[in-house]
Amino acid sequence: MDVIIKNGIIITALETYKADIGIKNGKIVTIASKLDDSSAEIIDASGKYVLPGAIDGHTHLQMPFGGTVSSDSYEAGTRAAACGGTTTVFDFAIQQKGHGLIQTAKERDALCAPQACVDYAFHVVITDLRPEILDEFQDSVNFGVPSFKVFMVYKKEGLMADDGMLYSVLKKSKEVGAILAVHAENPDLIDIRTEKFLKEGKTSAWYHYLSRPEFVEAEADKRAIHWAKQLDAPLYIVHLANKEGMEEVKKARDEGYEIYAETCPQYLYFTNEVFKREDGRNFVCSPPMKGQESQDALWKGIKTGDIATIATDHCPFQSYEKDWGKDDFTKIPNGCAGIENMYPYMLSEANKGRLSFNKVVEICSTNPAKIYGCAPQKGSITIGGDADIVIYDPTKEFTISQNNMHSDSDHTIWEGVKLKGYPFMTFSRGKLVYKDGEFLGKPGWGKFLRRKRK
Amino acid sequence: MDVIIKNGIIITALETYKADIGIKNGKIVTIASKLDDSSAEIIDASGKYVLPGAIDGHTHLQMPFGGTVSSDSYEAGTRAAACGGTTTVFDFAIQQKGHGLIQTAKERDALCAPQACVDYAFHVVITDLRPEILDEFQDSVNFGVPSFKVFMVYKKEGLMADDGMLYSVLKKSKEVGAILAVHAENPDLIDIRTEKFLKEGKTSAWYHYLSRPEFVEAEADKRAIHWAKQLDAPLYIVHLANKEGMEEVKKARDEGYEIYAETCPQYLYFTNEVFKREDGRNFVCSPPMKGQESQDALWKGIKTGDIATIATDHCPFQSYEKDWGKDDFTKIPNGCAGIENMYPYMLSEANKGRLSFNKVVEICSTNPAKIYGCAPQKGSITIGGDADIVIYDPTKEFTISQNNMHSDSDHTIWEGVKLKGYPFMTFSRGKLVYKDGEFLGKPGWGKFLRRKRK
Amino acid sequence: MDVIIKNGIIITALETYKADIGIKNGKIVTIASKLDDSSAEIIDASGKYVLPGAIDGHTHLQMPFGGTVSSDSYEAGTRAAACGGTTTVFDFAIQQKGHGLIQTAKERDALCAPQACVDYAFHVVITDLRPEILDEFQDSVNFGVPSFKVFMVYKKEGLMADDGMLYSVLKKSKEVGAILAVHAENPDLIDIRTEKFLKEGKTSAWYHYLSRPEFVEAEADKRAIHWAKQLDAPLYIVHLANKEGMEEVKKARDEGYEIYAETCPQYLYFTNEVFKREDGRNFVCSPPMKGQESQDALWKGIKTGDIATIATDHCPFQSYEKDWGKDDFTKIPNGCAGIENMYPYMLSEANKGRLSFNKVVEICSTNPAKIYGCAPQKGSITIGGDADIVIYDPTKEFTISQNNMHSDSDHTIWEGVKLKGYPFMTFSRGKLVYKDGEFLGKPGWGKFLRRKRK
Amino acid sequence: MDVIIKNGIIITALETYKADIGIKNGKIVTIASKLDDSSAEIIDASGKYVLPGAIDGHTHLQMPFGGTVSSDSYEAGTRAAACGGTTTVFDFAIQQKGHGLIQTAKERDALCAPQACVDYAFHVVITDLRPEILDEFQDSVNFGVPSFKVFMVYKKEGLMADDGMLYSVLKKSKEVGAILAVHAENPDLIDIRTEKFLKEGKTSAWYHYLSRPEFVEAEADKRAIHWAKQLDAPLYIVHLANKEGMEEVKKARDEGYEIYAETCPQYLYFTNEVFKREDGRNFVCSPPMKGQESQDALWKGIKTGDIATIATDHCPFQSYEKDWGKDDFTKIPNGCAGIENMYPYMLSEANKGRLSFNKVVEICSTNPAKIYGCAPQKGSITIGGDADIVIYDPTKEFTISQNNMHSDSDHTIWEGVKLKGYPFMTFSRGKLVYKDGEFLGKPGWGKFLRRKRK
Repeated sequence: MDVIIKNGIIITALETYKADIGIKNGKIVTIASKLDDSSAEIIDASGKYVLPGAIDGHTHLQMPFGGTVSSDSYEAGTRAAACGGTTTVFDFAIQQKGHGLIQTAKERDALCAPQACVDYAFHVVITDLRPEILDEFQDSVNFGVPSFKVFMVYKKEGLMADDGMLYSVLKKSKEVGAILAVHAENPDLIDIRTEKFLKEGKTSAWYHYLSRPEFVEAEADKRAIHWAKQLDAPLYIVHLANKEGMEEVKKARDEGYEIYAETCPQYLYFTNEVFKREDGRNFVCSPPMKGQESQDALWKGIKTGDIATIATDHCPFQSYEKDWGKDDFTKIPNGCAGIENMYPYMLSEANKGRLSFNKVVEICSTNPAKIYGCAPQKGSITIGGDADIVIYDPTKEFTISQNNMHSDSDHTIWEGVKLKGYPFMTFSRGKLVYKDGEFLGKPGWGKFLRRKRK
Repeated sequence: MDVIIKNGIIITALETYKADIGIKNGKIVTIASKLDDSSAEIIDASGKYVLPGAIDGHTHLQMPFGGTVSSDSYEAGTRAAACGGTTTVFDFAIQQKGHGLIQTAKERDALCAPQACVDYAFHVVITDLRPEILDEFQDSVNFGVPSFKVFMVYKKEGLMADDGMLYSVLKKSKEVGAILAVHAENPDLIDIRTEKFLKEGKTSAWYHYLSRPEFVEAEADKRAIHWAKQLDAPLYIVHLANKEGMEEVKKARDEGYEIYAETCPQYLYFTNEVFKREDGRNFVCSPPMKGQESQDALWKGIKTGDIATIATDHCPFQSYEKDWGKDDFTKIPNGCAGIENMYPYMLSEANKGRLSFNKVVEICSTNPAKIYGCAPQKGSITIGGDADIVIYDPTKEFTISQNNMHSDSDHTIWEGVKLKGYPFMTFSRGKLVYKDGEFLGKPGWGKFLRRKRK
Repeated sequence: MDVIIKNGIIITALETYKADIGIKNGKIVTIASKLDDSSAEIIDASGKYVLPGAIDGHTHLQMPFGGTVSSDSYEAGTRAAACGGTTTVFDFAIQQKGHGLIQTAKERDALCAPQACVDYAFHVVITDLRPEILDEFQDSVNFGVPSFKVFMVYKKEGLMADDGMLYSVLKKSKEVGAILAVHAENPDLIDIRTEKFLKEGKTSAWYHYLSRPEFVEAEADKRAIHWAKQLDAPLYIVHLANKEGMEEVKKARDEGYEIYAETCPQYLYFTNEVFKREDGRNFVCSPPMKGQESQDALWKGIKTGDIATIATDHCPFQSYEKDWGKDDFTKIPNGCAGIENMYPYMLSEANKGRLSFNKVVEICSTNPAKIYGCAPQKGSITIGGDADIVIYDPTKEFTISQNNMHSDSDHTIWEGVKLKGYPFMTFSRGKLVYKDGEFLGKPGWGKFLRRKRK
Repeated sequence: MDVIIKNGIIITALETYKADIGIKNGKIVTIASKLDDSSAEIIDASGKYVLPGAIDGHTHLQMPFGGTVSSDSYEAGTRAAACGGTTTVFDFAIQQKGHGLIQTAKERDALCAPQACVDYAFHVVITDLRPEILDEFQDSVNFGVPSFKVFMVYKKEGLMADDGMLYSVLKKSKEVGAILAVHAENPDLIDIRTEKFLKEGKTSAWYHYLSRPEFVEAEADKRAIHWAKQLDAPLYIVHLANKEGMEEVKKARDEGYEIYAETCPQYLYFTNEVFKREDGRNFVCSPPMKGQESQDALWKGIKTGDIATIATDHCPFQSYEKDWGKDDFTKIPNGCAGIENMYPYMLSEANKGRLSFNKVVEICSTNPAKIYGCAPQKGSITIGGDADIVIYDPTKEFTISQNNMHSDSDHTIWEGVKLKGYPFMTFSRGKLVYKDGEFLGKPGWGKFLRRKRK
């Protein structure tokens, strides 16, 4: 064996037990009460927890958007991921008009491959649904990309799928065994509300929230679910952030439909109150954080299993870019950094007793692996699976700060947040890529992950 | 007194009792156990029922549509109404681009006034929502037109209100005390489904149904209700024809929202099976008749009070026009005749025991009067109200046929339907306009009805 | 005509209009814009409202209970009723072991007939369900008593119907066209909670509430509804006072079941806070008033139509009797006076704008008449109906006090409550029995009302 | 290592993977891609599945009931369990009047210990709730028995808990961290229905079903859930067999309550049709099998996670005992054999594609272990857990017959049922107790399992 992790408490989505883990050629090959192999490197995890690495199913790295490009390169983003215990990153490859699906994935792969510090995959965002694109869905699945996404917003930007397109894509995704993710907000309402606020001179970040409040998101959730139920097609709602949408998801799931909801740590920790802060513009993302009732509903959804996954929607912009919208919220690039904060925040909440560690593993790692088609290679501590492992120190006190983060972003909305416990080591396919505050990996290590849902 | 109706059984939305009715100057002035006045004309209603005249809240007379004009003039339509026991007709005045709201109503009034055989009113359909139009809502209410409508369909035709416009109109309607009606179907789904069928050579009337089946209508119902609930604004859904929409209406009403659903006799009697008939094209209207489950849900909605009103959506086209779509359902002008059939059909169902006569009066007369702001002048048998009265013969056997109808339409989808009981006389403001198969009124008698909702 | 009521505004459950009313031989014979008859007594109702008299569907007059007898005789109770605008009183005739159903009704009738100041009827409370009693249900219906009641509580007192008996009675009531009312609370929970409180020395009136709080009532509501739904039998829940029960009623009604809920003014005006008062024992009744949430739910139920009727549960005990429980809430006779307060309180709420006058007429008069089988003789202002009429002065300011009440009770829980508007006159079958504070009727005037539900 | 299971596919509630398992001293000590140890006994599981042994949470062995004693001794029952892949058996210890809780458990343990072929535990059924019994709950938990049960039926037999007792026991169970199970049916309804059928001479097994049909069970489910929700106390409903109860469970779980439902294979495979068979009496158990709708609802509940566990309610009686009720269904001892059929049947359904093998492991093994407080010692394949393992042959064709069963029962209701796949070997704490049709264990091997829920 190459590496043995000894004496830790293993925590999976299902159970918690004490055992040693043996790793060889990047895979977990043995789990045992007691493992010894003088040729192996021994990692002592006494007093620590041993978890599957997190999977971030939602990032936007070096993405052209809002007149600029999100400020983390693939290298910076995946480096930060590793330092936050995330060992697989799903980025979005957005189809340009006229391009094909696999072409779109390959284009991003060409950018990402030399930079990736952990394993990665792509969802292809469909913006141009020609008949030949529908024919390409099966090819995409065969290529290992069985997940797509459409925007129900960004009408003016030409990215929006109208209901006809959304329905067609859902239908085709189901046929080929893929899953469709949607960004659900109602564009018309955002437009008329934004126009009204600008006309009234209401331009602060608070009006970003008010231009797309709870019910504007909820409507689109309900509509997407309506089509999915009609087709009995799997649907994945990204960054769900409102109570009414949460309830619609729960209802559909209770009826037996395959509907998944993802939420993000920023919706679980912050509320719309942040938009009243001096630096409110730094928190601007879409959908915006909502009121306390919505936050409570999301936590309840985690408890009842109706929140299937946590992801970050990592999409950072530098302070000078955020400042563009100082006097006009519509000029603020939408998005925040978060790729390094997901697992630490969620595990800290477990450590404080809000939910179980098993539940955190389930929603941050095991579920995304299953839903997106890479289990049990990813998302678990299992014989034969990749040795993507986090050793977690439950006693570590950690205060998030720009200083101790590893992305290229020049600020963090999590500044000053205190965590109980923190990742101590991260292994990517058996290789130590992070230890105690220090990134130890290298660009190009991460591999493109070919997936298969069924 | 001018007229006394003697010995009949009076049926209102609330009760059934025996009494005589005295009429003077077009108004009901006395109701008594026994009335005598030698100067009055005596109408003997022994063995008959005496009901308030029906109100048809939804017609399209001489309306330009689908490359032609609906085939009943205001004269023909209101004549047929009178012969079917309908004493008030609400027609739609559709705003032309650039026109104002009151202008729109006045334009149609100019056409209608000289022709109307019974009293009439207009809903204004808003298609062009400029800022100055929003300012005109209050004027319209003051003018006596406190009801508007928007289409959620007819995107290509340029008639559609998108969600932003729908929301704005709901909001403004609430502010001025008006009510908004919507035609709820999803245009994008209709488009992609239609396109697909045409491409596949599926062109019969059955595909008209399949291009806009239950779930396509239901989505729009749910969306309209979502906005109305958010605003706590009154909403009126015209020609509801599907179960899921019915359930959403019921849910909203149970929560205390002011949501009204209208359905039409064609949805209560026919199902989508008609589109499989040889003459299926004659039944083409939008929304189309749905499956049996939907029909059952509508009847249940009547029972639980969640169907507030019945109206006809009368919009006839001649056989040669319907034939345009013999080989292509998209070429069939949408709409059917029905203005003469509503009250006879519904009362026949009561007479057969399916529901109470009081209920029929409630949904065909009293409720539309209340909702649209003309009660108690219309919709009731009350001292001081207009003497719009139907004398109904519960023993009459009647088979509907083109021969015994009074509109200009050259066919009827109700051909051959057998009714138990039939209107014997219709009075419009005390004047006998119909008796036993014969129209006795005259064009120009009907007056424009100024309404006030609050 | 004997009497003409002129110039008033008539308010029925359905509409509001100005007209005169002519009365002859105790019946309403004419309603007209203008009535004149020099031989008739003219009552000028200018500026006043003319309403059908209220129907109190739930009273306990001179009832042996809790070691004493409720303190209003039939004379005192019906006198107070008349003075509060109530023209029909339904009292409970409780079956003694071994007695028959009609025997039970006749026994109470013998007591009541010489005393009654307004018309009256009985529900028979079944406590001893022998096979021959089941056979007597049809006789009871034929006798004009088509309504029964069982207690789901009072287990120790030997009055309780267990689930088997409740089910049998529901079934038989349905068969014969009668309706069953239930007092729904869970006896076992009351017993264990009471025992616990007494053991802990918690003996104030507040513990009366805590011994039978919201969920204890709700359970029995749900159980009764469960059986009724299974049988599709009509069910009437008396004095509903909790939110969860209200919701179950609404749900059942939405599903189409014939379930009626009655609540009482004391649940609409007071909350459980009263039990913390010095004189809390005077408010002790069962079920007790509940928390604010329940009160809100009841008002919402009125709005949505899920509260079908209002009644009083009038069951007064004198102060010295209430004092028996000064140091032990279990010794307080359960019940309060209210027969004179229902219509004045509800109409005052309408006058203040909380609900419409039509709605008050509906739930206090028209609905009980329909449900209990005496419409349209009672509960309406209709040609041919009894002239049970209240003339209401909407401008009168009235403060309820023991001084201005007319029962024999020596106190009132409504002491000091200010009303806007008050009944000015009450007519019972055309005879003036109350005017402006003064009772003008006489014992023995009231007649036993034979009813027929179908 | 003592034993190595090689080359099998391991299936847990969470995942499916290929690995070898090493066992030492009855515990699982290693799981690895490849394990070799020349000193260990090697079990070749090539082509087979390796699963955690099932846990039967509901049996009645040698239980005095219905005038006789259930016909399987602890030896016979646990022997049959082992042969059906069940490695832990939970039996009910029914409190006799006057006895204590631990006394009750110890009395049964004394009977069971020398006979048990696999590990076992007890739930104590409370029938006599004196104050000192409430004090004993904590002791019972400390003793390793943190699960109790009450009957909501068997009123006449003196076993029933009324609502007061049920509520008290739920409350106390919650306080001490125990869980309460209930047998939910309504006794009063059973009694009146039974009495009626007997009077009418309706005595066949079909009337056993009709004496306690769907709604009779559902009412008790709803009532138990009502109390549990009020207390926010954990509740476990045994042998749920009806749709309406299933829906109430689902609703409560959706609201976040800790409510568990158990169902049994007989409710998943048979319907009430069996009671029409000649040998219908052999199928008599309580609750009886219900209609197809209920069966469908139970399967749906498995899918949505609202059925938490499967157990057998194994309670066999010999044919001659069943025959006592040939002419009177009330004389049939209630109960059937099933302890050997649970895992084989459920796994066969998985093998046929109806649900996943992971799901079967979850509900037949992992969940009962967690809910009843013996995870991860039982219910999983985990380092450190007991080596309770089943090797399953998915290719084996098996037809259930009295001949190939191992209990003392002289018939089986599963006679002739064909299964796809069958357990090949069962290990109890590493010891082979069953292989390919043959029982290899011995009485006294099984140990009393001390549990801890929190």
